[in-house]
Amino acid sequence: MGKVFIVGIGPGNEENRTIRADRALEACDVIAGYPVYVDLVKDRYPGKELVSTPMTQEARRCQMALDLAKSGKTVALVCSGDSGIYGMAALVYELRGENSEPEVEVVPGLTAACSGGAVLGAPLTHDFAVISLSDRLTPWETIENRLRCAAEGNFAIAIYNPASHGRPDHLKRACDILLRVLPEERLCGIVRNIGREGQSSRILTLGELQAADVDMFCTVFVGNSSTKVVNGALITPRGYRNV
Amino acid sequence: MGKVFIVGIGPGNEENRTIRADRALEACDVIAGYPVYVDLVKDRYPGKELVSTPMTQEARRCQMALDLAKSGKTVALVCSGDSGIYGMAALVYELRGENSEPEVEVVPGLTAACSGGAVLGAPLTHDFAVISLSDRLTPWETIENRLRCAAEGNFAIAIYNPASHGRPDHLKRACDILLRVLPEERLCGIVRNIGREGQSSRILTLGELQAADVDMFCTVFVGNSSTKVVNGALITPRGYRNV
Repeated sequence: MGKVFIVGIGPGNEENRTIRADRALEACDVIAGYPVYVDLVKDRYPGKELVSTPMTQEARRCQMALDLAKSGKTVALVCSGDSGIYGMAALVYELRGENSEPEVEVVPGLTAACSGGAVLGAPLTHDFAVISLSDRLTPWETIENRLRCAAEGNFAIAIYNPASHGRPDHLKRACDILLRVLPEERLCGIVRNIGREGQSSRILTLGELQAADVDMFCTVFVGNSSTKVVNGALITPRGYRNV
Repeated sequence: MGKVFIVGIGPGNEENRTIRADRALEACDVIAGYPVYVDLVKDRYPGKELVSTPMTQEARRCQMALDLAKSGKTVALVCSGDSGIYGMAALVYELRGENSEPEVEVVPGLTAACSGGAVLGAPLTHDFAVISLSDRLTPWETIENRLRCAAEGNFAIAIYNPASHGRPDHLKRACDILLRVLPEERLCGIVRNIGREGQSSRILTLGELQAADVDMFCTVFVGNSSTKVVNGALITPRGYRNV
């Protein structure tokens, strides 16, 4: 009987990967995952069997990883960022059900809240919420309610999946909700291609964010009422006195 | 002129550290930080100058790191977990102010939401909020409001600093707030000493959490309305169909 490592590979580049993730990828027989993520790691771990399925085939992909482990292979199922946060870990547990075999190990990774925050400065130093704008698996009303609650709680917010091909206006609609509670001048940031070629970032207001051009490679940050820009860095102070 | 790396060392053990954090610690002249965190890394990076200040002296600690960098040293200012999330990154930027020297680089790390979630299973696979119960720098009313908003948004919640010596009843008070909105049966988890000696975890209900024994080495997870236990793992499904 083999084993499934569900590996958070971080934002993409090798240096932002954990040593534990690196070891799991070294040790495995098979690398499984969404094609973009398999492509990000395959050159560094040559000689591995590669297995991928397209988007919308997540359950099939996880089942293949479990089946390969049952046949004796050690499988690294790779996820972008963290393997738990919007990753495949929960789905693998669901599919394995009440069986205790094959063994499953969740290997966490840097999620975009951490890796993208570091690019901008430190926008999440105080309490924050993480919300995905993908309504493929979540009713849009649930997303709207969470945006409203996050704004009312004065949370800093990290927004994942701010746009996709099929839904280019999701971020605009999210800003409409946020602007019912938050001022137009609220400071925000966008990071694109975190840890990958062509990484870029910008700082802007919530009013400007509403019209900003984003795609599926962007992570968006909305500050809380204390967020400020210091010498080009977007930071949310924790409240240390005499600073 | 030297440089300050603000290094998220992850939960504590070396294998959950990123390669980038490992390199910064290898390269530095000085390791600065809260004594517990300096102790976690010092044996692996011998020969470094060690600088620490006690809790409540965070601004002094960050200023010392900046001053050492100005004197030509390369400084790794270590933070537990991520360097941005409740870490020192924002404070260093505030203290440096509008100067662009010394150079500052934020090196992200695994925050307890990721590393602790992986120990329990995958409790944060859907939208979540991160809230610290420390009221040393934050009015308790702000914390209460955020707990209420997170519950109303049906967020999974990661609770940092659930108790301390001075305030042993913070988690109980937080549960009182959550229980005004959430049912007693809501599934929760506690992870203690993530990635360190004596790591332990347990799964319990919100009603049980209210009376649970926690300390400053614990991170607490509160599930959303879909969270379930599958063969001992606490998971929050994302909503994949036919599973």
